[in-house]
Amino acid sequence: MSETRTLASYLVSSRLEDIPEDVRHESRRALLNLIGCAVGGSREPAVETALRAMEPFFGKPTARLLARSERMDPLFACVINGISSHVFEYDDTMPKNYIHPSPPVASALFSYASAHPVNGRDFIHAFLLGFETEARVGNAVYPAHYDAGWHITATAGVFGAAAAVGKLLGLSEQQMIWALGLAATQASGLREMFGYMAKSFHAGHAARNGYLGAVLAQSNFTSGERGIEGPRGFAPVTAATYDLSKITSGLGKDFQIRDNAYKPYPCGLVVHPTIDGCIDLYRDYHAAPDSIRAVRVRVAPLVLDLCNKKDINRGLEGKYSIYHSAAVGLTRGKAGLQEYTDEAVNDPKVKSVRERVTATADSSITEDQSHIEVELNDGRKLVRFVEQSLGNVHRPLNDRQLEDKLRDQSVPLLGEAQVEKLIQLCWKIDQLDDVGELIKATVRS
Amino acid sequence: MSETRTLASYLVSSRLEDIPEDVRHESRRALLNLIGCAVGGSREPAVETALRAMEPFFGKPTARLLARSERMDPLFACVINGISSHVFEYDDTMPKNYIHPSPPVASALFSYASAHPVNGRDFIHAFLLGFETEARVGNAVYPAHYDAGWHITATAGVFGAAAAVGKLLGLSEQQMIWALGLAATQASGLREMFGYMAKSFHAGHAARNGYLGAVLAQSNFTSGERGIEGPRGFAPVTAATYDLSKITSGLGKDFQIRDNAYKPYPCGLVVHPTIDGCIDLYRDYHAAPDSIRAVRVRVAPLVLDLCNKKDINRGLEGKYSIYHSAAVGLTRGKAGLQEYTDEAVNDPKVKSVRERVTATADSSITEDQSHIEVELNDGRKLVRFVEQSLGNVHRPLNDRQLEDKLRDQSVPLLGEAQVEKLIQLCWKIDQLDDVGELIKATVRS
Repeated sequence: MSETRTLASYLVSSRLEDIPEDVRHESRRALLNLIGCAVGGSREPAVETALRAMEPFFGKPTARLLARSERMDPLFACVINGISSHVFEYDDTMPKNYIHPSPPVASALFSYASAHPVNGRDFIHAFLLGFETEARVGNAVYPAHYDAGWHITATAGVFGAAAAVGKLLGLSEQQMIWALGLAATQASGLREMFGYMAKSFHAGHAARNGYLGAVLAQSNFTSGERGIEGPRGFAPVTAATYDLSKITSGLGKDFQIRDNAYKPYPCGLVVHPTIDGCIDLYRDYHAAPDSIRAVRVRVAPLVLDLCNKKDINRGLEGKYSIYHSAAVGLTRGKAGLQEYTDEAVNDPKVKSVRERVTATADSSITEDQSHIEVELNDGRKLVRFVEQSLGNVHRPLNDRQLEDKLRDQSVPLLGEAQVEKLIQLCWKIDQLDDVGELIKATVRS
Repeated sequence: MSETRTLASYLVSSRLEDIPEDVRHESRRALLNLIGCAVGGSREPAVETALRAMEPFFGKPTARLLARSERMDPLFACVINGISSHVFEYDDTMPKNYIHPSPPVASALFSYASAHPVNGRDFIHAFLLGFETEARVGNAVYPAHYDAGWHITATAGVFGAAAAVGKLLGLSEQQMIWALGLAATQASGLREMFGYMAKSFHAGHAARNGYLGAVLAQSNFTSGERGIEGPRGFAPVTAATYDLSKITSGLGKDFQIRDNAYKPYPCGLVVHPTIDGCIDLYRDYHAAPDSIRAVRVRVAPLVLDLCNKKDINRGLEGKYSIYHSAAVGLTRGKAGLQEYTDEAVNDPKVKSVRERVTATADSSITEDQSHIEVELNDGRKLVRFVEQSLGNVHRPLNDRQLEDKLRDQSVPLLGEAQVEKLIQLCWKIDQLDDVGELIKATVRS
C-alpha cells in the first residue's frame, strides 16, 4: 500500500463534478483572499529586492505576475507571487496544521494560467486538488514536523503546487507519482527564517519547485515512487511521528478547505480577540481618546510571550504589540493594513491610548479569548469579554468581510472601480473562459 | 557564538596566499576528476530529459554548460552541470561523511565562470572555500543526518555552492551570513530518490539554490542569521545529534579536501577491493577466460547485501554485481565505463567467467578487503588478498591515474587530442586568465 500512489491516482482521476458546491465556493473565498494579499504585498521590499536580484535570470516573458506589470518565465513568476501573497502574513491559515495553504498552490497556478489559457473550472479544480494535497501531507506530519522547526507552509506547499500544476498538465498516474516524489525531494524551509525576507520566499520557492517537479515528471524524469511514505521519504525523514492515514482517509469526501481560516487583522493571531473586543467597544461607545484613563487587558500567557512590544515606532513592531492593537481598535474602530504603518504607530491619538494600556497574563483565559476593561475619566468602566475571535473557524469571516479585507489591501493600489471588478471576477472565477482575465485585473490598468 | 557568522567571516576574509600548495593541488585534482565525470555523464538520459523539460524556462543564454553546446542562464546551467557530473556516481567522495563534494560546488562555479570572466586563482580559491564549507557542514551533522535519510551531497552541497559563488560575488560578511541562511532554508534531497533520475538532479538543485542564495544575499535579501546553528536552523532540524565545533575548529588550517577520495571504478565502492585483486591477477598471469575453472571471492557481508546481482543483462546491473566486476577485472584487466555497458555485460567471454564466480560473506574481512582465489583448469590456484583498495584515502589515485580516468570518460566524446589539451588546462587552471577557456575545452569542437 503506497500513500503516494493512492494520492496520485485520486488526483489524476478526480472530476470537478464530484466536488460539492460548498467546497467550490470555499475555493473562490480562498482565491479572493489570496488575490487581496498578493495585491497588498506586491510593493513590499522583499518583493522589490527579489525582483531586482533575480531579473538577470528571468526566462522568456511568457508569464504575468499578480499585481505587477513585469513579465518573466512562469517559474520565477511563482517565486514572486509567493513572496507577494505571503509577505504580510495576512494569508489564510489552517488551524489544524498551521499551514498558510493558498500561497504555494495559487502562486504556481496563477503563474501557469498567465502563460497558458486555463478556464476557470479547470483552475479551481486544480486549486482544490493542490490545496487538498498540501493540507493532507501537512496533516500527516503535523505537529512533529512543525515542532522540529520546519516551515510547514513551504514543505507541504511544494506537494500542493506539484499536484495542482500536474493536474493542469494532465499527468498520468505514473507521472503524478514522480511529480510528488520530486516535490518531496525539494521540500525545504526552516522556521529559523521567521522575521526575515527568506520567510516569504519560502512560499514562492515551494510554488516554483512544485511547478518544476510537475514539468519534469511530464517529460518522464523519474523519482522515487514512495516519496512521501518510503523509509527515506518525506514523512519518516522530517517527522519523528506521523500518520499516513491522514493522506488517504476520506480522500475525495472530506475536503480540508472546509477548515480553512482567514485573518481579519494583519498581525499576530493571538491579539485578534483583543482587537475584536476593542472594535466592539469603539462601535458601542465611541469614547474619545482623551476620555480614556486606563485600558486593562487580561489574556492568555502566550499572548504576552509573543506580542509584548510596548515602546515602538515602526509599523512592523505594531504587529507584535497587544498595546498598539488595542489602541487602534479603541481609537479607529478597525485594525487593517493602515493601522500597522509607521504613520499609525506614531499617530499621537493612538500613541496616547497605547501608553495607557496594560496587559496581564491570566492562565484561566484561552488564546481565543480576551477580557478588556476601559476606564474613562468620568469613572465609568466599559467591559468586554471575547469568547472567540473573528476569523476563527467557528466564527469565519463571511463573504462580505472577505471582500472588505481585499478592498482594504487593494484600493490604495488599484482604485475602487478596478477593485470592485476584481471582486466580481473572483466570485465568478469558474465561469471564466480564461483565468488570465482575472490575473490582468490584479494589475493597475 | 554563532558558527554561521564565524564561517562567513572566514569565507570573506580568506586569501588564496594563505592556503598551502598541497591543498591547492588537491583542488586541481578534484576539478580534473569532476570535468571527466561531467563529460562522461553529459549524454545520459537524465541530462537529456532534464534539458528537454526545462528548456522552455531557460533565461538569457549567458552561460555555457560543461561538455554540451547548449546555452542558457547560469541557474539552469548549474542544474545540468550537476546532473552530468553526478549521474554516473563516479564523482569524488569524502569517506568521512559520504558527501560527493565537487558536483554541487563546481557545477555552480563553472556555470558562474561561463557567464562572467573569472581568473583561475579566484576560481580555485572559491572552489576550495565552497568545498570546505560543504564538508564542514556535512561533518557537523554526519552521521545522524545521513542516517535519517538525507542525501547529504545535496543538503550540505547547497552551502558549498552559496559560499563559493558568494566569494566570487565579493559578498560582505553580513551578506555571506544571509547567503548561508538562504542555503540552509533551501537544503533538501531525500535518499528515497536513490536509483532514480532525481538523485543526480539533487546535485544540480543544490548548485542552483546555493547560487541563487548568494545572488539574493548580494541584493540584501535577508535571511535568519543563525541558519546553521539556530534552534530552528539546519543542524538542529535535520540531525538528531550534531557537533557544531566541526564547522569552526581548525578553519583555515585543516583543509577537508585533503581527505577527498576518487573512485577508480564506476561501480559500488564495496566491490572495488575485489576489482583491484582481479586486475592484479590479470596483469600477473593473463589467464585466458577458458582456462579458468572457478573464481572464489570472500568479502565482507555488506558487499553481498549491496552487490549480489548475478543474472544480469544490463550495464547498470553490472555496477551492483560483484560477479560481473570480478569477471571484467580477470578478462579485461580493467573496470572502466566500457566494462559497465550493456555490451560488456553480454560479452560472451565476460559472461562465461562471471558464471564461474562464487562469493562468500566472511565477517573477518573488512569492507576495504577482498580475498580472491582463481582456480585454473590445470589445477593451479592464483590467490590475492587485497588489504586496501585503490582510491581509498590511504591509497589514493595518483595524478596519472586521475588523468586515465578522465581519458576513459572523455575520449569517446572529445577525441584524444582535445582530451590531452583539457588535461593540461586542468593542471594549470590557476594560471588561466579566464576559466572560460577550460569550460570551452570540455565541449566537442
